[in-house]
Amino acid sequence: MIAEAVTQYLRSNRQRHLAELFELLRFPSVANSEPHACRQAAEWLVRRLGKCGLQARTVATAGQPNVLASLHVGDDLPTLLLYGHYDVQPPDPLEQWHSAPFEPVVRDGAIWARGANDDKGQLYAHIMAIEAWQQAGGGVPVNLRMLLEGEEEVGSPDMEKFLAAHAGELSADAAVISDSEFFAENLPSITYSLRGLAYVEVTFRGPSADIHSGINGGAVSNPINALARLVAGMHDNAGRVTLAGFYDDVLPLTEAERQQWDALPFDQAEYARGLGVESLGGGEAGFSVLERRWARPTLDANGIAGGYAGVGSKTIIPAQASVKISMRLVPNQNPAKVVEGFRQYVTEHTPPGIRADVKLNAGARPVMLNTRSPAMEAGKAALAEAFGAAPAMVRCGASVPITELFQRLLGLDAVLMGFGLPDDNLHSPNEHYKLEQFYRGAIASAAMMGNMMK
Amino acid sequence: MIAEAVTQYLRSNRQRHLAELFELLRFPSVANSEPHACRQAAEWLVRRLGKCGLQARTVATAGQPNVLASLHVGDDLPTLLLYGHYDVQPPDPLEQWHSAPFEPVVRDGAIWARGANDDKGQLYAHIMAIEAWQQAGGGVPVNLRMLLEGEEEVGSPDMEKFLAAHAGELSADAAVISDSEFFAENLPSITYSLRGLAYVEVTFRGPSADIHSGINGGAVSNPINALARLVAGMHDNAGRVTLAGFYDDVLPLTEAERQQWDALPFDQAEYARGLGVESLGGGEAGFSVLERRWARPTLDANGIAGGYAGVGSKTIIPAQASVKISMRLVPNQNPAKVVEGFRQYVTEHTPPGIRADVKLNAGARPVMLNTRSPAMEAGKAALAEAFGAAPAMVRCGASVPITELFQRLLGLDAVLMGFGLPDDNLHSPNEHYKLEQFYRGAIASAAMMGNMMK
Repeated sequence: MIAEAVTQYLRSNRQRHLAELFELLRFPSVANSEPHACRQAAEWLVRRLGKCGLQARTVATAGQPNVLASLHVGDDLPTLLLYGHYDVQPPDPLEQWHSAPFEPVVRDGAIWARGANDDKGQLYAHIMAIEAWQQAGGGVPVNLRMLLEGEEEVGSPDMEKFLAAHAGELSADAAVISDSEFFAENLPSITYSLRGLAYVEVTFRGPSADIHSGINGGAVSNPINALARLVAGMHDNAGRVTLAGFYDDVLPLTEAERQQWDALPFDQAEYARGLGVESLGGGEAGFSVLERRWARPTLDANGIAGGYAGVGSKTIIPAQASVKISMRLVPNQNPAKVVEGFRQYVTEHTPPGIRADVKLNAGARPVMLNTRSPAMEAGKAALAEAFGAAPAMVRCGASVPITELFQRLLGLDAVLMGFGLPDDNLHSPNEHYKLEQFYRGAIASAAMMGNMMK
Repeated sequence: MIAEAVTQYLRSNRQRHLAELFELLRFPSVANSEPHACRQAAEWLVRRLGKCGLQARTVATAGQPNVLASLHVGDDLPTLLLYGHYDVQPPDPLEQWHSAPFEPVVRDGAIWARGANDDKGQLYAHIMAIEAWQQAGGGVPVNLRMLLEGEEEVGSPDMEKFLAAHAGELSADAAVISDSEFFAENLPSITYSLRGLAYVEVTFRGPSADIHSGINGGAVSNPINALARLVAGMHDNAGRVTLAGFYDDVLPLTEAERQQWDALPFDQAEYARGLGVESLGGGEAGFSVLERRWARPTLDANGIAGGYAGVGSKTIIPAQASVKISMRLVPNQNPAKVVEGFRQYVTEHTPPGIRADVKLNAGARPVMLNTRSPAMEAGKAALAEAFGAAPAMVRCGASVPITELFQRLLGLDAVLMGFGLPDDNLHSPNEHYKLEQFYRGAIASAAMMGNMMK
């Protein structure tokens, strides 16, 4: 439910809103490497929210600051907690971008920039909606809390502590998280389950320095060869993960979900084409592609490095090699238990002459949300209103750790109402966000606020 | 066989010879970065050889010049080709040197400088020997050819062409290459076989860009995981290489060689300590460590790279991953055939959704020398005479490409008669060369010339 004046206001202010988003996109706010840009982006958001009448401030963390904001409208009104993140993925590899990642441009009806979709473009929907209600709708119709995070792309290392410290300030009736996507263009979607994450790094150390591969080759364990063997052994020939106990707690897919997903307009060949692969080769045998992405746990190497990687040849047995691995977990797997199985596997598979070091970089629990809560129903109606189609109920293979933290620490079931499209190149070069999604996202956010009043 | 007067002359001129070597060591003749110093070193050698009565000159190549010299004594005398190289490894990392790399000093009975051993100190043995024969022995007793190379440490890129162009001028009855080492102190050694090399690089390409490991994980082949599986599969559980036909042409170790090597003073624990590993884990089952290093072919990854290798975590399935692999080949393996087997293996083991690219970077043939040739016998006797111990007959796991080039292009079996010791820090900071090896090397060279007359 949204006042016509609010919609009209959003329509009239499109160009200005776009220009504002461009300002935000120009901050290269990569959490690990650009603390200055992160602080600037956070302060920019504080100013912007202040202009909408919210009490807003940055709050320091062990890493990049978060933005907290609130608007109290009335004691008898429901309170909505809006979440987004202003930090972005690193833009590498830079040479693959068609335009500079932090110089946003509009091309082919879309905004092209790192963060255009994930998550600056999406979080901006709420700012536009708030402004529209304030300026044209007689004021925001609910109480608001807002949390804009600065370290989502690096696994929200400090968020658990942060939420515990600010639990009172963040108390609400429901949360809206806009950091997800439509199942397909013209098919708005609400995500009711997310995979969790266990992120580990293994370093294999052999000789104390790089040594001559001719003089010594054959005598010692080569850290790269040994690491390759370690990683290869983590899957069996059917694509199943071999870590002890890995599948013990996996919640089986219901028959209803399977039928729902089979009915989705999913074209495997088109999906493969979109990723640039000739065939969908990887993955666990016996499950459909959507099941493999949404309801089955996976293990993927995200990076590997060791020895000489420059141009030409260097004949060494390297002193060390290391690999980063992310495991995507499904309800009801426990990251700690999975990591324990991983450590055990590494211990059992480290060959003589190699010392192994396992480091846990990040963990997030999988989450399963109540699909029938009042907030969920409000979200479904808002999406239908803004995009003209009833939303599909889907899962997502990614982690949005805040969802599980809201549930566990604040007792809040979130509505994962995102506006991205599947081919927006999230986390990749040439990330973009359709203008239409940008504009309609604001309408959906405004409608959600209205619907909470029902 | 060496005239007593020649030995006496060498003893009397030690200080002057050492001072001359210091002059040569002061040229920072690094082939890739110091062309001026290389030219100076080459010209210094030309003048020095001229003083010994040789016809000497520098010969330009595509890179640094080589020095060619000759001395014709008599038509009925055998001709010996002496080889060394005046270029040196870069001295980095400089801060780890105890004294400046190009300011030679004597300390603890050794000469400390880059090139002190490899190869200026070793090649100088021949210059001292020639002078001694000329001044005190009634003249050099054989015809001489000398080749002092300027690009050995950068892989002799121009040498094949050079040898072809100067084949006539380099024709000889035997060659002596002094660019190797004793098996241990007080145990002179002759290397009669070297491993060859096939160097390849494999790139696995999957998605057209890095993609989100959560959203897509489970659906596609991950290039790193696939590459790990590829590399892991190149060895079986017994450490044997699985490439088709890999061992077909391997010349088996003779029982005599095995017994000879078992008798060498090789302390596995000390060798492992020197490399900084707790145990010698890698390698093919059923062979001793020396056999694995010298007589068995190996396959070692020299570098691997893919995805995100920076600090912290990035949750991607990378677009590609690649690995550099060197295979050390033994007689009678053929690099071209081995590479063919490698290509076939990659083709057969590339999973769906991955495109493979195989690149050949470098190849060198293994070499097996005649251990009973007259020159080889002359070398054995010369080392025994100079160092007071019969030389061990050893192989070496590395390649010294000139050896194979002499054999293949000039039809010359070389005697690999070097005077370095295993802990002289070749290619490392604090390279040094024992004075005793320096002086006795000259006696060995002089004796070798004498022995060729038998």
